[in-house]
Amino acid sequence: MLRIEHLGIAVKDLSVSLPLYEQLLNTPCYKQEVVETEGVSTAFFRTGESKIELLEATNENSPIAKFIAKKGEGIHHVAFEVENIEAEMKRLAALGFELLNTTPKNGADNKLVCFLHPRTTNGVLVELCQEKR
Amino acid sequence: MLRIEHLGIAVKDLSVSLPLYEQLLNTPCYKQEVVETEGVSTAFFRTGESKIELLEATNENSPIAKFIAKKGEGIHHVAFEVENIEAEMKRLAALGFELLNTTPKNGADNKLVCFLHPRTTNGVLVELCQEKR
Repeated sequence: MLRIEHLGIAVKDLSVSLPLYEQLLNTPCYKQEVVETEGVSTAFFRTGESKIELLEATNENSPIAKFIAKKGEGIHHVAFEVENIEAEMKRLAALGFELLNTTPKNGADNKLVCFLHPRTTNGVLVELCQEKR
Repeated sequence: MLRIEHLGIAVKDLSVSLPLYEQLLNTPCYKQEVVETEGVSTAFFRTGESKIELLEATNENSPIAKFIAKKGEGIHHVAFEVENIEAEMKRLAALGFELLNTTPKNGADNKLVCFLHPRTTNGVLVELCQEKR
């Protein structure tokens, strides 16, 4: 794990939370992106070498809609940048961590991603991500 | 906000979670510290310019014990490093963010800290921290 690539925060309404986080972080949102395959509309902010990613559900079956229904708004996941996502997935699977996808899939922000099930990481939804080459 | 200084994760049992996170992050825990005033026993790991801080309650009145009773293990807070904590507290209070302490207090890892109430930050417990000079 090279660094925290981003922290994902589930919000109900980006039109409210985007300006709120601009104030909180004291930096402008530099990108918005919809990832239809994941059912999310996202907004990104820079903080040091990491990003804050706000996530709003685009439909009621979105994982973000389900998360908010269950737990309310808040931190949804932490993403770590890795050098080689396939090697890291293999390393973690061999240690007993449960991968939610068996091959890397496309994520926001030009990334290949894989999620780990929170039940093997003390309740933390961990994302591995690697920049697409 | 200069960067993500650390991400705090509430765990039930450090003796289980410390080796688990060493495996997950593929890096050794470099420090353990008890902060009795906060009712927490902590373990730190480096990832890029940020840290992961595992937090175990030292007593049943600890905020970590209450958090786990309510929400289970998982991400508890995100801490941002700031240049001048008093100036940043003043800036955020003026914008309507609710501070949980009116003056900076002592945190783990030689820091002055202040928390923001999650109800003004979309459910996210935000910590501001500044290295003690």
